[in-house]
Amino acid sequence: MYSRIENIERVLKEYLPEKSGYQKLIFEAMEYALMAGGKRLRPMFMHEVYKMCGGMDDKLIEPFMAAIEMIHTYSLVHDDLPAMDDDDYRRGRKTTHVVYGEAMGILAGDALLNYAYETAAKAFDIKDCDAKRVALALQVLAKKAGVYGMVGGQVVDVDMNGSVPDMDTLMFIYTCKTSALLEASFMIGGILAGADEEDIVLLENASRNVGIAFQIQDDVLDITSTTEELGKPVNSDAKNEKVTFASYYGLDKAKEAVMNYSMEAEKYIDDMNISGDTSFVKKMINDLIFRKN
Amino acid sequence: MYSRIENIERVLKEYLPEKSGYQKLIFEAMEYALMAGGKRLRPMFMHEVYKMCGGMDDKLIEPFMAAIEMIHTYSLVHDDLPAMDDDDYRRGRKTTHVVYGEAMGILAGDALLNYAYETAAKAFDIKDCDAKRVALALQVLAKKAGVYGMVGGQVVDVDMNGSVPDMDTLMFIYTCKTSALLEASFMIGGILAGADEEDIVLLENASRNVGIAFQIQDDVLDITSTTEELGKPVNSDAKNEKVTFASYYGLDKAKEAVMNYSMEAEKYIDDMNISGDTSFVKKMINDLIFRKN
Repeated sequence: MYSRIENIERVLKEYLPEKSGYQKLIFEAMEYALMAGGKRLRPMFMHEVYKMCGGMDDKLIEPFMAAIEMIHTYSLVHDDLPAMDDDDYRRGRKTTHVVYGEAMGILAGDALLNYAYETAAKAFDIKDCDAKRVALALQVLAKKAGVYGMVGGQVVDVDMNGSVPDMDTLMFIYTCKTSALLEASFMIGGILAGADEEDIVLLENASRNVGIAFQIQDDVLDITSTTEELGKPVNSDAKNEKVTFASYYGLDKAKEAVMNYSMEAEKYIDDMNISGDTSFVKKMINDLIFRKN
Repeated sequence: MYSRIENIERVLKEYLPEKSGYQKLIFEAMEYALMAGGKRLRPMFMHEVYKMCGGMDDKLIEPFMAAIEMIHTYSLVHDDLPAMDDDDYRRGRKTTHVVYGEAMGILAGDALLNYAYETAAKAFDIKDCDAKRVALALQVLAKKAGVYGMVGGQVVDVDMNGSVPDMDTLMFIYTCKTSALLEASFMIGGILAGADEEDIVLLENASRNVGIAFQIQDDVLDITSTTEELGKPVNSDAKNEKVTFASYYGLDKAKEAVMNYSMEAEKYIDDMNISGDTSFVKKMINDLIFRKN
């Protein structure tokens, strides 16, 4: 996977603003937040689904690969703020607002979110692009990032603060907070490659299941892993008295659910009417089950 | 102007999400922030420039009218946060984070920003729309809202905190913080109406001047007005030891500059190669000079 991550980070750097001008500081803060490592799961899935669906011109998908990672990153920057989760460290580095101050942390998140759309909209300028597909991809990106997607999930999660969610509410939070950006990644990969409407629906269903499996695996690792292996404090859910799928149903049922949601996701991929090679996307889904961090 | 504001508020309500579902609270917070009154200057200029340039179908411009006001509003919600200007009241009402809490204030801003793009991208679905024009309008919106526009200005303003800007830096802040969204409004009005490239440049220049005149008039009113007339505390710049155009050059020169920038703006409008009636847009520019709040 090394060279794929390298390629994604090349794309991110290519689309980041040049660090000059009066507003240089915000460019530095954006880069600090964006180039903090991580699995780059969303742009990687987007790119692999694009190729799987027959997408040939990487130049067309790259603005969206950068945009989805910018949106994911802005959400982390805002999540870490003192008024939200109040986290000083992420992946072993100081969080953006700790380095640049709280006001600049808010603005760095705003900047990344705006710049994500500015970047995605650059796809309209790619030679021979199909403007209709790019338009639909933009619509999907905005919907899945916003109040009917990721932000919607964050809001319900914050709003629960202290009280215990029922399973429906918890699944709403998982689907919005974790699945939504994966849904955007899968769907945009398909849309820009020219997949038909039925296949786009199958991609949406597949990625919804991937997101839920991913989130439940997170819950499981928070219980079963060590701080060294996970790279962040374990048992944080229990300490914060946070109800998760794993704490609600127990560890065995949670592990079973991770398997089931992943298998469901792969079934949706198998149902697609495409001739491309699905093996790498399915391997990525499979790796998520067995991941240790 | 009453019926124009009424029309804009109808558009805003039409595009706001329905207040139901798990994430109902964020829909309420978005509405609270967005329906707080105000001059609605940006969507009004956008609509009037659209008509002035021959735009006929209001349905096409309305998603962008809603979007620009959502972006303006998100910036106010985040500006008012404790880590930024820490304002408890705006236009005589409690600010969004005071009513809904700080975490929800951050998320309400994020939600409005995302939803602005979600709303603007709906223009692609309008019957008989020219996708190229809508794409260009989206690119302009994102650029003027982001790090090369409004956010860029906010960043430099926050970064100045305490130190005294030189005149170049101050004009950069005015142009980005205040002109950029007006530039987007004028340019998008022209783009969606089908104005040619030269006219779009004239619209950009006109609105840059309108924004600077507007901001200097703000500085002047902060010195010369009363709290009753202005609807907010006066002399706030002096109290915060904030350097403004008016404090730098004195009141007389500032008043003169407001006149000059406004006249410059009107000249750019006059230079346009259009047959539409320019009188209302010019009246709006003129009203900004003589406004009392």
